[in-house]
Amino acid sequence: MPNLYVALTHYPVVDKRGDIINSAVTNLDLHDISRAAKTYGVKYFYLVTRLADQQDLVKKIISHWTSGSGAAYNPARRSALELIKVKSTIPEAAEDIECIESVYPKTVVTCARKYPTSTGYKEFRDILEIGQPHLLVFGTAWGLAEPFISEADYILDPIMGPADYNHLSVRSAAGIILDRLLGTR
Amino acid sequence: MPNLYVALTHYPVVDKRGDIINSAVTNLDLHDISRAAKTYGVKYFYLVTRLADQQDLVKKIISHWTSGSGAAYNPARRSALELIKVKSTIPEAAEDIECIESVYPKTVVTCARKYPTSTGYKEFRDILEIGQPHLLVFGTAWGLAEPFISEADYILDPIMGPADYNHLSVRSAAGIILDRLLGTR
Repeated sequence: MPNLYVALTHYPVVDKRGDIINSAVTNLDLHDISRAAKTYGVKYFYLVTRLADQQDLVKKIISHWTSGSGAAYNPARRSALELIKVKSTIPEAAEDIECIESVYPKTVVTCARKYPTSTGYKEFRDILEIGQPHLLVFGTAWGLAEPFISEADYILDPIMGPADYNHLSVRSAAGIILDRLLGTR
Repeated sequence: MPNLYVALTHYPVVDKRGDIINSAVTNLDLHDISRAAKTYGVKYFYLVTRLADQQDLVKKIISHWTSGSGAAYNPARRSALELIKVKSTIPEAAEDIECIESVYPKTVVTCARKYPTSTGYKEFRDILEIGQPHLLVFGTAWGLAEPFISEADYILDPIMGPADYNHLSVRSAAGIILDRLLGTR
């Protein structure tokens, strides 16, 4: 199984004007990304928000599906949402991984723009096979804020199809990227 | 550009007991799948439901983003949601494609189970490159109903990762399958 962790962060991300914001949590992000994480053998899915009321909301949703009536109604959903841990910051998530792995993870970010230093999927698939822990970070809203992108250990290539349009939802992008990195064909 | 059309159907699909139902439309399916369709050069995205009130709801949502205040707020969203056509049945969608292409499309379905006749992604990518029109059909709820699957021209392999779990959301599955068939690497 791969040694990969995923984070979805709500800060620091940008709005449509490029200003840094705290974005709000979207319920279906929890479901779709945890289900994709479970499918591709991701170890934990960190939901990152600094806002205490949003953390409480997320914990309430997770609890419904992991120990509430949702757990009995849909066990497959339960096993996916059990992968979610709520953290306030990306470094907190990375420190949690360090506790598990005894080594601080490398961070990997995704962006809709191509960087000169971007890493291709085939190349990063090979890096993952070495077995060191990596934390793949997705941004919400209009994407991760710039200083955070440049400071990551790896920036993955943008996802492109034949059309000149790349405005995928973060839910779609997460599924596609996990499939490119860990899918069996 | 590929000669591919996508449909998301709410009938005939099955519930968790395997009974055939009309499922309800999920707002984010419209957004996520139209954005993925636009990214991968899909010609039209058919939203299929037999229920008149659900058709009205979908048209209202589309209208908000294509000609309402949403169109000015987010032009990228507009160009994605413009791909959506509302139809009552899959044959109605196929007939619309026949009007456009002057040839009735082949149908392609996806399923979380492997069939003896399943087609692999590499193989179907080659078939698409010939240029004949194909309609790729996704089911909501617990998936497409059985007689409909067997009658399709092609059944694609289930999406698998390294884990023994394949309960992706239809939004994730649609993105991943379009990427496998049409993504540039």
